[in-house]
Amino acid sequence: MFDFQIAATSGAARTGTLTLPHGPVETPVFMPVGTQGTVRALSPADLKAVGAAMVLANTYHLHVRPGEEVVAQLGGLHRFMAWDRPLLTDSGGFQVFSLAGFRRVDDDGVEFQSHVDGGRRTLTPERATEIQWTLGADIAMAFDHVAPGAADEATSRDALERTLRWLERCARKLGELMERWNDGQTGRSFQPSNVPSFRQTLWPILQGGTHPNLRIEGLRRILEMGSWTGLAVGGLSVGEPKAKMYEVLELLEPRLPRPLPRYLMGVGFPEDLVAAVERGVDLFDCVAPTRNGRNGSAFTPEGPLNIRNAGFRTDKGPVDPTCDCETCITYSRGYLRHLFVAEELLGLRLLSLHNVRYLIRLAEQMRAAIRKGEGALAAWADDWRRRYTQPGIA
Amino acid sequence: MFDFQIAATSGAARTGTLTLPHGPVETPVFMPVGTQGTVRALSPADLKAVGAAMVLANTYHLHVRPGEEVVAQLGGLHRFMAWDRPLLTDSGGFQVFSLAGFRRVDDDGVEFQSHVDGGRRTLTPERATEIQWTLGADIAMAFDHVAPGAADEATSRDALERTLRWLERCARKLGELMERWNDGQTGRSFQPSNVPSFRQTLWPILQGGTHPNLRIEGLRRILEMGSWTGLAVGGLSVGEPKAKMYEVLELLEPRLPRPLPRYLMGVGFPEDLVAAVERGVDLFDCVAPTRNGRNGSAFTPEGPLNIRNAGFRTDKGPVDPTCDCETCITYSRGYLRHLFVAEELLGLRLLSLHNVRYLIRLAEQMRAAIRKGEGALAAWADDWRRRYTQPGIA
Repeated sequence: MFDFQIAATSGAARTGTLTLPHGPVETPVFMPVGTQGTVRALSPADLKAVGAAMVLANTYHLHVRPGEEVVAQLGGLHRFMAWDRPLLTDSGGFQVFSLAGFRRVDDDGVEFQSHVDGGRRTLTPERATEIQWTLGADIAMAFDHVAPGAADEATSRDALERTLRWLERCARKLGELMERWNDGQTGRSFQPSNVPSFRQTLWPILQGGTHPNLRIEGLRRILEMGSWTGLAVGGLSVGEPKAKMYEVLELLEPRLPRPLPRYLMGVGFPEDLVAAVERGVDLFDCVAPTRNGRNGSAFTPEGPLNIRNAGFRTDKGPVDPTCDCETCITYSRGYLRHLFVAEELLGLRLLSLHNVRYLIRLAEQMRAAIRKGEGALAAWADDWRRRYTQPGIA
Repeated sequence: MFDFQIAATSGAARTGTLTLPHGPVETPVFMPVGTQGTVRALSPADLKAVGAAMVLANTYHLHVRPGEEVVAQLGGLHRFMAWDRPLLTDSGGFQVFSLAGFRRVDDDGVEFQSHVDGGRRTLTPERATEIQWTLGADIAMAFDHVAPGAADEATSRDALERTLRWLERCARKLGELMERWNDGQTGRSFQPSNVPSFRQTLWPILQGGTHPNLRIEGLRRILEMGSWTGLAVGGLSVGEPKAKMYEVLELLEPRLPRPLPRYLMGVGFPEDLVAAVERGVDLFDCVAPTRNGRNGSAFTPEGPLNIRNAGFRTDKGPVDPTCDCETCITYSRGYLRHLFVAEELLGLRLLSLHNVRYLIRLAEQMRAAIRKGEGALAAWADDWRRRYTQPGIA
């Protein structure tokens, strides 16, 4: 049910197939983010049309609204959001540390104030695990303590240690839920999905900030703790310089077990995807394509383009002449500019669609390059970077 | 190129085929409104999926932004908005009298203040005709003076007389444009569409408020003025009681030439569509399905439903169990409620899609009933009303 087969490598980069209860996922893969159980402005049919294989949803947001019990009563997260391909839920850790107003952290968990209704709520490793089990994604994430990108070693050490203690509790809780499930003692709340063969796996999150010793120690202790089906690198892309993120990935790459899929959380922009795949990462998620799309910014092979630019007023060409998405094969830049200037909803959808397609196609292109074997990805990436970072067209 | 064939009648109601340069349209037909060159929240593919045969776009809005010359440079209105089926543009008259801030009317035309940039602009019958020719819709509407629904006879008489004088000027202007086109003296601005066989027709608008004598006199003078391909009834659904609207339609029906398609502008809600088809109307447009959809209100056979209703929180059923649209076959009321409560863009799209499908299906159902012959539509309409006006489900 959970399987990862590497088909080819090129340097540290790998391409393969991750098999999950709701289907196979070719890696490297970009996951669009469906924060509130919907990838903003896009429908499941749109996501399939642009080749999305897997979507991430946010446990924090769904717990706060509509609540995991409502999702369960509506058939579980897959049926709720009408997405029948694989889903991953984060643990809520990142949101609790970035979104919530008031928060109080102790070893038990985090008390925080909902950003929706201001109410006090508590997330613990056990609750985060239970909520994700109730939601029913294919992959659940361990509840983690995220320190800011610039945190000093003591702060990062503290977050790492807590995350490691919490990981043990998440794994124990999921084990209990799984046991009850397998014994047939499955009340509604433990049967959130209607896929009969449903099982959920848990991935640990490695913290440690930008401190090499913490990252190495954290990784060692995670791997000692159990036999995982995948592993996430957290606490990056949270304000540290990009070079630091690449350093951490390079440090970790030779130490990560090769058969484990590697997920770099919250990344990223096109240049980050390319750099991280070269450093051996398999899975990505980021709100950038939809958020930037709603702001009128479109990814193109020559770098981002602002569709509101007056120069596009009567431009008959597509956003990205190399792209095969509905937006690019149907509409002119001039029309898309009009939609944004006139504040029409369709514009938000069309640029979000293009940007998601752009990142998914980027991953497709990297998979093809990796399959060409040693050196092929590096050559492709050099070409790609030369084009992407040329003086922008907008 | 412009043809209307009536296939069957049932009482005053008719069903037939209106043939336009961009294809055939089965009547009675509901036209979704693409105010700014886009039906709000919906794509052309969405519109085709719900069976839309024809779309209305607003001359006033497109003239103000992005400007008809920009639309022409981007290939004309069809190509601009990627809609290859028939289009109708209104004349801007209604918007000038309802939307614009300052306005000054004289016999030449209307000076008004743009609702976008506050700039002073002037629309005359000639300009409105030229703008619509440049946009390139299949059907253009005459520039009219719209009086409020409750206007007294003198005010309505004044608006009617001006509208009749303006109609002559619109027809003359379109004749000039057509002549130049046919002589091959067709500069870019006279060749707005890329459909080689393009021609545009002009429909008059009958004003006269709720005053029977004015409506009858107006109709007589319009019909004396020329040989039209269709005729619109304007100045209804602008604040007068519904019974008054039905009275005017009943007054006009026996006096309207049977071979002419009849367009009731700005109507309407489901009950109005049914009542007007029974009174011999063939074409409709209204922003209600999309505007109400964005407000969380969905049409159903049992009347409108407010999706935000707390009672739908864990409702697994579709918005309308009888409906075949993507929204109803894919999503639960509970999920749609969540999208609205969480202010997600997808909700606006999904309810707009359903509401447009609802009105298009309503027209389909009426066409089928009319084809069953004498008495069949009346029986269908009685059943429909009994169900639609029962105590609402929300």
